[in-house]
Amino acid sequence: MGTEPGKFKSALKVNEGITQPAIVSGESLANFKSKRKKKLSIDEYVEGILSQNRTILSQAITLIESSLHKHQETAQQIIEKCLPYTGKSVRIGITGVPGVGKSSFIETLGMNVVSNGHKLAVLAIDPSSERSGGSIMGDKTRMEQLSAQPNAFIRPSPSAGSLGGVARKTREVIYLCEAAGFDVIFIETVGVGQSEVVVHSMVDFFLLLMLAGAGDELQGIKRGIMEMADAIAITKADGANIEKANLAKTEFQNALHLFPKGGSGWLPKALTCSAHQNQGIVAVWETIEDYLKFTKWNNHFFSNRINQSKFWMHQTIKESLLDHFYKSHSIQYKLDHVENEVLAGKVSSFEGARMLLNDYFKKI
Amino acid sequence: MGTEPGKFKSALKVNEGITQPAIVSGESLANFKSKRKKKLSIDEYVEGILSQNRTILSQAITLIESSLHKHQETAQQIIEKCLPYTGKSVRIGITGVPGVGKSSFIETLGMNVVSNGHKLAVLAIDPSSERSGGSIMGDKTRMEQLSAQPNAFIRPSPSAGSLGGVARKTREVIYLCEAAGFDVIFIETVGVGQSEVVVHSMVDFFLLLMLAGAGDELQGIKRGIMEMADAIAITKADGANIEKANLAKTEFQNALHLFPKGGSGWLPKALTCSAHQNQGIVAVWETIEDYLKFTKWNNHFFSNRINQSKFWMHQTIKESLLDHFYKSHSIQYKLDHVENEVLAGKVSSFEGARMLLNDYFKKI
Repeated sequence: MGTEPGKFKSALKVNEGITQPAIVSGESLANFKSKRKKKLSIDEYVEGILSQNRTILSQAITLIESSLHKHQETAQQIIEKCLPYTGKSVRIGITGVPGVGKSSFIETLGMNVVSNGHKLAVLAIDPSSERSGGSIMGDKTRMEQLSAQPNAFIRPSPSAGSLGGVARKTREVIYLCEAAGFDVIFIETVGVGQSEVVVHSMVDFFLLLMLAGAGDELQGIKRGIMEMADAIAITKADGANIEKANLAKTEFQNALHLFPKGGSGWLPKALTCSAHQNQGIVAVWETIEDYLKFTKWNNHFFSNRINQSKFWMHQTIKESLLDHFYKSHSIQYKLDHVENEVLAGKVSSFEGARMLLNDYFKKI
Repeated sequence: MGTEPGKFKSALKVNEGITQPAIVSGESLANFKSKRKKKLSIDEYVEGILSQNRTILSQAITLIESSLHKHQETAQQIIEKCLPYTGKSVRIGITGVPGVGKSSFIETLGMNVVSNGHKLAVLAIDPSSERSGGSIMGDKTRMEQLSAQPNAFIRPSPSAGSLGGVARKTREVIYLCEAAGFDVIFIETVGVGQSEVVVHSMVDFFLLLMLAGAGDELQGIKRGIMEMADAIAITKADGANIEKANLAKTEFQNALHLFPKGGSGWLPKALTCSAHQNQGIVAVWETIEDYLKFTKWNNHFFSNRINQSKFWMHQTIKESLLDHFYKSHSIQYKLDHVENEVLAGKVSSFEGARMLLNDYFKKI
């Protein structure tokens, strides 16, 4: 195994064989057409993206999302060439459980952003979409108004995969969108899992949407997510709901005061809004602008970006090392047995780990 | 490198050479004496621990804390033989920043626990002690009353090292204390870093001590720690401080309601107490007992223990793999350069990671 170039690469190769027979399947024509369309050189891709050609941007994103090794290599070269033109957007994470009114909120906020002369890209991280069948971006009729805007670009969630893989792809898509001139980027996620932590580590501002008066169970927000929020917006604050929303706002504002400040020095805000009545949406955007002003003034905005780049390099290294370990034959063969010994209290956690590690390092 | 048994082992060997010259240093006599005392067989250690011999327990803990490979191997064998006798204690994590009155609180609560017929061990995780010079267990005059109790065993923090290393040692010390009949174990930490997360993942109950009316800066508690707490105790609730403490209790209780429930289904409690006046300390202990009853009833207590064993095995694997990667020659040689390229925006985080990983897997 000493000459193998690492599982993180060879794992991709596995898929190469699979796609050939797909040419003769039902999808063959669409595949064939898109393949023909995609016969661009790296430079043509890069020029297309930099000249803000949306079709070429979409095609390049499809390359990023592809599981074909060849496509990924092309994508990588495009990304590296686009890198000097990235980083000039504001990256905003938006999270909230299904039912909180995320689509309506994003549409209304997005229309606002676009009408202020910005170019907006809306992306999503949703690694659970394939498993649960309920993709947050699956509803094609949503955000009708926004998707009709020439300055808005809405891209559905990449197909399901490991969170690490999806995160990596999303970050790469951000780069391409920035190179294509989008200066505001929303990254949307459902607030129920690890994906918020991932989104938090690739955005400048993290917005949590909450419903007023819903119990813990309904809110479904995972522990720790509230503490990552730079602002909490109570949605659906209209009609009979207004009073409840205001009460929730006060409660959350008090709770946010109790939290220690994050590295930004910013005191998180609680707000109410109604996408339906376009109430309070401007205030959310103003809060984001206040935050940007404040963190650019105290330099957190820039140091945070640098920390994120570093984080993602080391995160990728960690995931690849773990992948290589857990996918190696000797570990796959022994893991269950050792784990059971540990769970039965026959060997300690550390002794179990030592046994597996010895085996792994002997074999590679 | 293909035959090397993994850095996690060889890293320990590095120290073996260093300790030999120490024999002729000023510490030589003490070293020599303790070495002579320690000439016990594995079985003698195990028998000593099981027969609740505190001196032998202390000596075995010293072996765990030693950086000598030989000592660690002996310790490992002792631990594996003690394993069948472990797990019967209640493990309680107690955290709070310096100044919150942690020592007084632990002493008063501990006296209470001991007078109820329990055997109590007090351990500490404090990886920062060497760096900051201010070890939380450094003050030898503290807990005078408790340390005089025959049924209390207070063990200072192991010498500084990586958090992973300290955590591993602490977990091993817990095993030995349990085998020696201690049925209540406190694990103490300062609430300012990653160590709380580590403590949280090795205890049954996590208690956060807070001061009333102290600003965020003074509290110094890291984000996310409050959400891990099964109870928050406001300390120093006596004299002129009582009103403020009661107010803080209400505020925290409200905030805790907003948090989603953890896996235990337990709703965290906020309490006030005064170690000085021995007020509210019994209530803290009763809350812990309520929690234990509740989580043993709904099985969380047991499933949590199993999850922790699994967690620590995989955590150890992860740390060892990362250690092996970052300490390998080719990575140490190239890392700074690649990191700088990433930070300068010349290559993407993922491309940087790929370059290093290719190099690593080519070399091993």
